[in-house]
Amino acid sequence: MIRLAVCLSLSVAVIAAVPTQNQVHAQAKSRRDAAIIAAVEAVLEAQRNAWNRGEIEAYMDGYARSSDITFVSGDTITRGWQTVHDRYKKNYDSREKMGTLTFSDLETRVLSDDAAVTIGRWHLQRKADQPHGRFTLAFRRTKQGWRIIHDHTSSAAP
Amino acid sequence: MIRLAVCLSLSVAVIAAVPTQNQVHAQAKSRRDAAIIAAVEAVLEAQRNAWNRGEIEAYMDGYARSSDITFVSGDTITRGWQTVHDRYKKNYDSREKMGTLTFSDLETRVLSDDAAVTIGRWHLQRKADQPHGRFTLAFRRTKQGWRIIHDHTSSAAP
Repeated sequence: MIRLAVCLSLSVAVIAAVPTQNQVHAQAKSRRDAAIIAAVEAVLEAQRNAWNRGEIEAYMDGYARSSDITFVSGDTITRGWQTVHDRYKKNYDSREKMGTLTFSDLETRVLSDDAAVTIGRWHLQRKADQPHGRFTLAFRRTKQGWRIIHDHTSSAAP
Repeated sequence: MIRLAVCLSLSVAVIAAVPTQNQVHAQAKSRRDAAIIAAVEAVLEAQRNAWNRGEIEAYMDGYARSSDITFVSGDTITRGWQTVHDRYKKNYDSREKMGTLTFSDLETRVLSDDAAVTIGRWHLQRKADQPHGRFTLAFRRTKQGWRIIHDHTSSAAP
């Protein structure tokens, strides 16, 4: 009787250890998601570093080089890589205006093998002020890697 | 000679009329995208109608009933269907405050079979003021249909 019980409980243990198809699928998906989240957040890390070196050109590498990308802020929409680039160049024409950028509270939702949405906080440390707020970024996997195709940024009331 | 020319041009016409695999795929994709865009924008239409009947409960049907949904505005994040619902109920506690809502300039990017991002403008016509701005919505296909899982809303400076 004891031997039967040991035998039964061993079988249960073995069966429990064999992952079901669903578990295998879930594990593969969570590995995929972890890889995508790391890739997307590496783009933001590279953007932050570029910004803090005063390199708007390199910062802009995080965006897809397309005339279709969109940038929403307040009630304004800006369209296309070049236009967004030129706006940054104009609005942040000195290291003092650029200040020191940090991102925090990043949360990335993986939507498919080649799409993700990241939300987070941005904060600019400057001598005169500390503008800050939240962003929503839509990412797509492109031939060049993960790139932002849409950016919605909002600010705390000054 | 004329017969050969006719024969050749007919062959070209027939060959040109047979779609390539890529064209078939592109057509299927654009049909898929059109169906998703219609479904997603129908959710917004239902939200607008619900709002303009003063029914916040029905308006909230556009959001996934999940504690994971997020709502970003300015520098604030609100999390979970119930919390977003309660905030609307508190901030818009009269028909006068709700005013008349319109959406415009909708643009939906289909990201996969079950994900899309919609950007657009919102406008509230009220006796006292006309608040307005832009939004970014992340949609997922759920068992209940397409639902908003993330909302980033910003306003024009008052």
